[in-house]
Amino acid sequence: MWQSHRVRVAVIGLGLIGGSTLRAFAAAGHRVFGYDADPATRATARTAAARAAPGARWQVAPTVRDAVADADLVLLAVPLPAVGPVLDEIAAVGYSGLVTDVTSVKEPVRRLVDRRLHRQHDRTAGFVGGHPMAGRETSGFTSADPKLFTGCAWVLCLEPPVTSVDDWLTVATAVTGLGARVVPATAEEHDRAVAAISHVPHLLATALATTAVTDPLAWSLAAGSFRDGTRVAASRPELVAAMCGGNAGAVRAALDEVLATLTAARAALDAQDPVQALVPWLTPGSSARGGWPPQPGRPLELPARPDALLRLGRAGGWITAVAEDRRTVTAVRPAPVD
Amino acid sequence: MWQSHRVRVAVIGLGLIGGSTLRAFAAAGHRVFGYDADPATRATARTAAARAAPGARWQVAPTVRDAVADADLVLLAVPLPAVGPVLDEIAAVGYSGLVTDVTSVKEPVRRLVDRRLHRQHDRTAGFVGGHPMAGRETSGFTSADPKLFTGCAWVLCLEPPVTSVDDWLTVATAVTGLGARVVPATAEEHDRAVAAISHVPHLLATALATTAVTDPLAWSLAAGSFRDGTRVAASRPELVAAMCGGNAGAVRAALDEVLATLTAARAALDAQDPVQALVPWLTPGSSARGGWPPQPGRPLELPARPDALLRLGRAGGWITAVAEDRRTVTAVRPAPVD
Repeated sequence: MWQSHRVRVAVIGLGLIGGSTLRAFAAAGHRVFGYDADPATRATARTAAARAAPGARWQVAPTVRDAVADADLVLLAVPLPAVGPVLDEIAAVGYSGLVTDVTSVKEPVRRLVDRRLHRQHDRTAGFVGGHPMAGRETSGFTSADPKLFTGCAWVLCLEPPVTSVDDWLTVATAVTGLGARVVPATAEEHDRAVAAISHVPHLLATALATTAVTDPLAWSLAAGSFRDGTRVAASRPELVAAMCGGNAGAVRAALDEVLATLTAARAALDAQDPVQALVPWLTPGSSARGGWPPQPGRPLELPARPDALLRLGRAGGWITAVAEDRRTVTAVRPAPVD
Repeated sequence: MWQSHRVRVAVIGLGLIGGSTLRAFAAAGHRVFGYDADPATRATARTAAARAAPGARWQVAPTVRDAVADADLVLLAVPLPAVGPVLDEIAAVGYSGLVTDVTSVKEPVRRLVDRRLHRQHDRTAGFVGGHPMAGRETSGFTSADPKLFTGCAWVLCLEPPVTSVDDWLTVATAVTGLGARVVPATAEEHDRAVAAISHVPHLLATALATTAVTDPLAWSLAAGSFRDGTRVAASRPELVAAMCGGNAGAVRAALDEVLATLTAARAALDAQDPVQALVPWLTPGSSARGGWPPQPGRPLELPARPDALLRLGRAGGWITAVAEDRRTVTAVRPAPVD
């Protein structure tokens, strides 16, 4: 089925990410069914399908059951609190294909799959936890973009026995087909990494906005560094709380690291010559940020084995393709910084 | 001289901000002389002048003395360490007009003026400390843009006896003529405000980059929230150190506030239900950032008196024009948030 490069995908949840995967899979030539719990969103998605190019259309199903009935791959693009109930529904209708998701924390989803899908279902449905590192200011199906994942890092969790390497390669084939860089990681590694690069940045942005707003003069002077440093503070508190609170352990550890680093800056400000004391504190972050994003090194072939793949992810690498025989993958490591 | 709306301005230092003021004053019809310590920059500025529109040209002087010889207003756009020596030079040639600056900290400059310009010079040269809240990723004269200050907040410090209200209104007339919103403040108020909205954001950005780079997986997954939250971390360490270290007292206080706020987030993460505990912590910053930038209220006339002007600045307001008779200003307060 996968060798044909034309699979049947069901996307459950048609917000920005779900809608974009729906459009992207359809544009890549797959047969795609979408479902959203909100009837208005289903209607919008149905109207948009009729306007899409003939080779890139999708269907909108009236129920989860109808959406997954003939699917090879179910992609869950619902908020974390809805993942459990949807897994129950999929298990109840006897779905036996593959399941992946796009939720921004991976250990809680893995635990849900373990308790709900695999236990109720005798493990006939395979699971590969996923997280595309794509986001936009805007949300909802109307912002969906089939090109959202081009060049985007998309984590796929690889941890036998929850996820077999075979299932992983299947989802990796589909996702690299959307132009994404597939990053192999365990759920724990993923959650630790996103705490540092996404969840803690949300907390810092909020802390900046919370303190600056108390001084009207400061508020009226705020310009570029404030605008960018606080951009994500405007996100809905419930969403950020779910994201950070759902990953509390890793966020605590990452926040503690940042607090320790800032305490060192505080000490430098107390020095007799604070200007001189701050330079060595500032330099590593300045060089690091100057070298971000990391540049890709030369592509290489790697054996499609869990240990090699996870080692690649830990080294900051990703894969861009799975070989037809599924024995190797095309891998890219970041180029060394000069 | 000022009623004619055509004054002679000397700009010392032709980097991004100096070059942009040079171009902006020239475009506004003033007679403008520029000087930079770097001969190559002077040559670039001279070539650019020849290419400018006939009514918007400037001259480049070979020395500070030549630049300020006939000036009514000298604008210092040099880094903080160069301000003292340039003030000495201006005093030595017997300059007796007005001096303003664009340095990002105001108390250190005020102290320099007090010690160097006013003491050596028997206070014949007037001084108005300034700081346009404009910046760009790029630097240098080649990035200079005459429209850089359109709509931009430009602090002008107003503290008798260092700065007379008469001198302040003169510089405010010139700067509002460039399209800037002039914000009246004391040097101390300015330094406290920029610590919160510019200097501490630089420290947070650096702390984020410094900690995230230690995990190659995190580094390769970093996307939008990291990109924006760390953008200014790539700035030159020496510049950020000069800025934060030159304002160490205010930066310490602002950093302590942010650290206290983050410590509250840390406690919320320790709660039995961290998701629920984080929502009230996140909400004030989210509403605040959602309402930024503040929208202007209706323009009103205010008496051109220090107390009224400083009260306006403290309330988050600004002025857009000085009346011909210099008795009133056109003021704008931020509109109340719904």
